[in-house]
Amino acid sequence: MRLLLASRNAKKITELRRIMTDLDIVGLDDVPAFPETVESGLTFEENALLKARDGARASGLPCVADDSGLAVDALNGMPGVFSARWSGRHGDDLANLQLLLGQLGDVPDEYRAGGFVCAAALVLPSGEEHVVLGEMRGTIIREPRGTGGFGYDPIFVPDGYDVTSAELTPAAKDAISHRGQAFRELATLIADLPQT
Amino acid sequence: MRLLLASRNAKKITELRRIMTDLDIVGLDDVPAFPETVESGLTFEENALLKARDGARASGLPCVADDSGLAVDALNGMPGVFSARWSGRHGDDLANLQLLLGQLGDVPDEYRAGGFVCAAALVLPSGEEHVVLGEMRGTIIREPRGTGGFGYDPIFVPDGYDVTSAELTPAAKDAISHRGQAFRELATLIADLPQT
Repeated sequence: MRLLLASRNAKKITELRRIMTDLDIVGLDDVPAFPETVESGLTFEENALLKARDGARASGLPCVADDSGLAVDALNGMPGVFSARWSGRHGDDLANLQLLLGQLGDVPDEYRAGGFVCAAALVLPSGEEHVVLGEMRGTIIREPRGTGGFGYDPIFVPDGYDVTSAELTPAAKDAISHRGQAFRELATLIADLPQT
Repeated sequence: MRLLLASRNAKKITELRRIMTDLDIVGLDDVPAFPETVESGLTFEENALLKARDGARASGLPCVADDSGLAVDALNGMPGVFSARWSGRHGDDLANLQLLLGQLGDVPDEYRAGGFVCAAALVLPSGEEHVVLGEMRGTIIREPRGTGGFGYDPIFVPDGYDVTSAELTPAAKDAISHRGQAFRELATLIADLPQT
């Protein structure tokens, strides 16, 4: 089955291809003249649906989209849906991470818990819609460690681990990650769809 | 009555002297070798109390302290207690304001509500403690306007007004502001204290 992932993020597309191995996944760069979705939602679910609807409409393919981010308890769940543009510059991972470390500078270790959250949406050409959620809880440390992953991975130590999610192998990260959880659930849901 | 305001912010001291005209208010710069309070609290109330306790202990005077900030609804109440260090650099008003505007760039007008919140604490040498809260609701606009006030005033339009709180006269701002409300309540409370 051919599926569009409504993303231009090469690392995200690679991650999803690893998780959903049975599907033929294409990215937005394969869809000509795709209009940029404005992620104006205030929840992960809203943004994932906005992107998946645009993708299904523009491509005629079943479309999957996710909106993910880091929800820090001491920041009332922020950066949240603003994770990728926390510094005001969309997609500047290093600036976003450094800003978060600066903001949390005075926050003691016992208040540095948070979770990576992923909402994954599926929109079919028929208009049928699904959204599922995944979360990986952990702690925000004070100095980046590791070169894997992306975003806030280098400053996030998942609960039960001593390493950051940027120090995990891709397979180890997929097994516990917010995105792994959400996309595996979506893959099951896709497998159960009536064949058309 | 002589009162210590646990702050080095000259604009804040001026504002408080305007509001509490009956009191002889000194700032932290008048207290020799005052140790810097780490604002490690996660609520305005906690931080105000931390500062007022340190001030009363170091000076032997009744001490007033406030913790104030801008709570933006779309950011789940953030910057909140992190308002003065939102950019990671404490007290850099311009960087904090520009960062907030960048973060809210894609947030539509109807979701740009928020409030300035002030917790004002009073700690007496006897150990007696009081905290009161004030809030001024309004909207976060897209471009700074006005040169009065400080912090986020240039991008905040109070409900019922067409101008930002940086475009109000000091007296007009005091009449409606979060800090005005909280400190007037504290002034009443101080006036009612048994004279010792």
